[in-house]
Amino acid sequence: MKELFWKIRNNNFFEATVISIILLSAVAVGFRTYEETFSPQLFFYLSYLDYFVTAFFLVEISLRLFSEKSIFEFFKSAWNVFDFLIVVISLIPIENMESVYLARLVRVFRLLRLVTVIPQFRVLIESFLKSIPRVGYVLLFMFVEFYIFAAIGSILFQDISPMHWGNIGLAMLTLFQTATLEGWPDLMYQSLEFNAYSWVFFVVFIIINSLVLMNMIVGVIIDVIVKENDKEQPENIQKLSEIQDELALIKSKIDSIN
Amino acid sequence: MKELFWKIRNNNFFEATVISIILLSAVAVGFRTYEETFSPQLFFYLSYLDYFVTAFFLVEISLRLFSEKSIFEFFKSAWNVFDFLIVVISLIPIENMESVYLARLVRVFRLLRLVTVIPQFRVLIESFLKSIPRVGYVLLFMFVEFYIFAAIGSILFQDISPMHWGNIGLAMLTLFQTATLEGWPDLMYQSLEFNAYSWVFFVVFIIINSLVLMNMIVGVIIDVIVKENDKEQPENIQKLSEIQDELALIKSKIDSIN
Amino acid sequence: MKELFWKIRNNNFFEATVISIILLSAVAVGFRTYEETFSPQLFFYLSYLDYFVTAFFLVEISLRLFSEKSIFEFFKSAWNVFDFLIVVISLIPIENMESVYLARLVRVFRLLRLVTVIPQFRVLIESFLKSIPRVGYVLLFMFVEFYIFAAIGSILFQDISPMHWGNIGLAMLTLFQTATLEGWPDLMYQSLEFNAYSWVFFVVFIIINSLVLMNMIVGVIIDVIVKENDKEQPENIQKLSEIQDELALIKSKIDSIN
Amino acid sequence: MKELFWKIRNNNFFEATVISIILLSAVAVGFRTYEETFSPQLFFYLSYLDYFVTAFFLVEISLRLFSEKSIFEFFKSAWNVFDFLIVVISLIPIENMESVYLARLVRVFRLLRLVTVIPQFRVLIESFLKSIPRVGYVLLFMFVEFYIFAAIGSILFQDISPMHWGNIGLAMLTLFQTATLEGWPDLMYQSLEFNAYSWVFFVVFIIINSLVLMNMIVGVIIDVIVKENDKEQPENIQKLSEIQDELALIKSKIDSIN
Repeated sequence: MKELFWKIRNNNFFEATVISIILLSAVAVGFRTYEETFSPQLFFYLSYLDYFVTAFFLVEISLRLFSEKSIFEFFKSAWNVFDFLIVVISLIPIENMESVYLARLVRVFRLLRLVTVIPQFRVLIESFLKSIPRVGYVLLFMFVEFYIFAAIGSILFQDISPMHWGNIGLAMLTLFQTATLEGWPDLMYQSLEFNAYSWVFFVVFIIINSLVLMNMIVGVIIDVIVKENDKEQPENIQKLSEIQDELALIKSKIDSIN
Repeated sequence: MKELFWKIRNNNFFEATVISIILLSAVAVGFRTYEETFSPQLFFYLSYLDYFVTAFFLVEISLRLFSEKSIFEFFKSAWNVFDFLIVVISLIPIENMESVYLARLVRVFRLLRLVTVIPQFRVLIESFLKSIPRVGYVLLFMFVEFYIFAAIGSILFQDISPMHWGNIGLAMLTLFQTATLEGWPDLMYQSLEFNAYSWVFFVVFIIINSLVLMNMIVGVIIDVIVKENDKEQPENIQKLSEIQDELALIKSKIDSIN
Repeated sequence: MKELFWKIRNNNFFEATVISIILLSAVAVGFRTYEETFSPQLFFYLSYLDYFVTAFFLVEISLRLFSEKSIFEFFKSAWNVFDFLIVVISLIPIENMESVYLARLVRVFRLLRLVTVIPQFRVLIESFLKSIPRVGYVLLFMFVEFYIFAAIGSILFQDISPMHWGNIGLAMLTLFQTATLEGWPDLMYQSLEFNAYSWVFFVVFIIINSLVLMNMIVGVIIDVIVKENDKEQPENIQKLSEIQDELALIKSKIDSIN
Repeated sequence: MKELFWKIRNNNFFEATVISIILLSAVAVGFRTYEETFSPQLFFYLSYLDYFVTAFFLVEISLRLFSEKSIFEFFKSAWNVFDFLIVVISLIPIENMESVYLARLVRVFRLLRLVTVIPQFRVLIESFLKSIPRVGYVLLFMFVEFYIFAAIGSILFQDISPMHWGNIGLAMLTLFQTATLEGWPDLMYQSLEFNAYSWVFFVVFIIINSLVLMNMIVGVIIDVIVKENDKEQPENIQKLSEIQDELALIKSKIDSIN
């Protein structure tokens, strides 16, 4: 039984079917947003497609689950856990949901399988996860930096533009906007009318931010280069050590001649 | 005959003539956009220039085609195929075209020969093509990411701004705009009025996007560095292997003394 | 006594308490910006919290100061000096301050301890400081570049838009905005009406600026890579030198046989 | 005589004086832009300062010119040629100039000595110049790319917005703006009203452009890394060759024993 499941699972045709159905469900999600363009009948058929996709996903995940030696083995891979969660959430009955928004979002959620089904995407995401230790601390640092600047900003500019600086939350959002260098001159000229030195706040924030981001990018590049070098260096070092051993042997042989 | 063609083709003066005529046709395309500034007579002469350039391109490509050992040999190079296509499309009679737009675009199309005629540009494009495996998957990944966010965005904001989020196509265009960090605060503040948490959508999208792009740049840099190292390492490794062989020989010689 | 202080200081529970209280004071600073949302009573309690945090910081810095062998030893670390300054400035009586703005800013100033208390943040900042020699000169160079362009800009465009080009100070601010690529087309089209060649000013400035920034990023990356290589190379070089010494020894031994 | 000049020239005090006077003239240029803030008398004094700075620059460049072995030697350095040109252009009598703009620009031109007098800035500029072969071809390639897109754009959108796409020159400026990702959605939505597929033009242009720029940055980084490696590798390779020579010697010695 398990063997049969395993065979089906690794069958090329089955794999292609899985990808096709995920793509089909993705296209269906897209179609649903063109409500006004297409006839209502299409949407009627689409809901049948929905049932089918849900059922297929359930069958597919079961196959993969039971083809493993044990359930424990299956859940060892984070990707399997992720797929399992997607299927489980898809099973929540959409029709009875209070909010039509939530029902639609659940359907979109299924699109995440697009990410897990293509091996190269998994590699991409795993490489993101590897850069988290470096990137994570920098993002945390930037959060603290934003928080401090937001506190200063909300003190200085609260009365000038409550929409942007009314409280520390709005101020952080405004600073995020400033960090993307979008529309910040408007904010600055607005505040310049009240205080001729308020440009310092914006210029210092943008320069600090750019340096932090530059440092992060450089850091990530260096991390990977160092790791690459560490992979390559050993071969050299080992050969050199072998040569040293060889030389020691030759020396002892010469000594034995003497 | 073939030899004569080959000689002409590689003649420095002929090469300079080809580049000059391509540049001339490029300048002519530019002139045509100043319809109001110049006299109509100029444009009359320009259309004669057009016939001449088309004829010259045809002669030049024929020369190159027949100077090769076989037609098959000629079409082996993608650059030749590209040039051939440009010339063939240029031959389509412009005057009889229904749309004047299309007629003009065909003329502009010929400018692409600017790219193929300069060797350094070919090197540039070839280096682009080499980075496709890495860049291509990231662009595909971003397409999926945009698609998922667009599906969510069109569910959440469809009623707020149909122009931007009306369907999944418009939503993807809006997200592309957001990814270029242009005008996104307007979109956000618009949606904030309806849902106080809609900033999460934009902030998460921008951060994810920046990380994906950063990862792509880092990836491309690393790819090239690794390739560079792989080119240089062997010399070291080979020298080390040679030294090891040498040592083995010496050892056996010492053994023979004993 | 000193030993007791040292023990307390390095106690895990004490360290966690310090971080918690810094976070608490950070949250309190955030809360203060929601004046309208929360009851005045909360703000009454917050001012008591303020006294407590100030007192705690004073105790903590004293502990760290007296746990060192000498006061001199304590002030050797720039981080300690920084923390000391923060605490001293926090001690300035806020209530009697003339400006309520300044009083609030002093409280925000205390948030900088968030940066010094987390070891990873210190590493980040130290890596910034290391990149200063390279980055510093580039920033100085950019200042000179901005100054020259601002002088030119204020001569050319002073009458067109005094708000942006009225004097060299405003012009530098406008160029900073242009360097962030924000809203510069408006400035350009404004000036194009008066002089058809004024686009040269903007295009040249943006291209020069991008190249300077690109050079800075590349420079920083190269600096770190070179430093990395310098760390790794010695191991190879040393092994090779050892092998050479070994060979010299073997040669002399063989000579002694002869 | 020459020796005396050489001594003065390399005197630390003299060098400091030169830098101070350049800075003074820079500050004076800045002051002139605050015409309304300061009294007219200041500007009267500033014009005397101008004469003094011009005279001083003339003396300084003469000193440097005559301290060299020959005039030819002096003009060998591009930096000297640059300084000489600045001084010569400064000598053009400003008062008699027709245009007051030109007179002011000549004064600003003198500020370029700020760049040549500081050694670190020279290093920076020399590193720019080194990256020209790579960067130059990419910029030329981008010019061709802009030209082709501008030709297409002016055909497609000429009637929609003559201000942006009226002729190939305006279209290239508009594309430069689009390349800086500033205000391009306005251009796109404007054209979308006339042709539902015009977004393709903008999206393709932005993606191609980003890839070209990314490739340029990666290329510059790789160029420098390869050059760095080439500097470091030889030491390893040479040591390995030395070891091989040594081994050959030992082998011959062993052979002589046999």
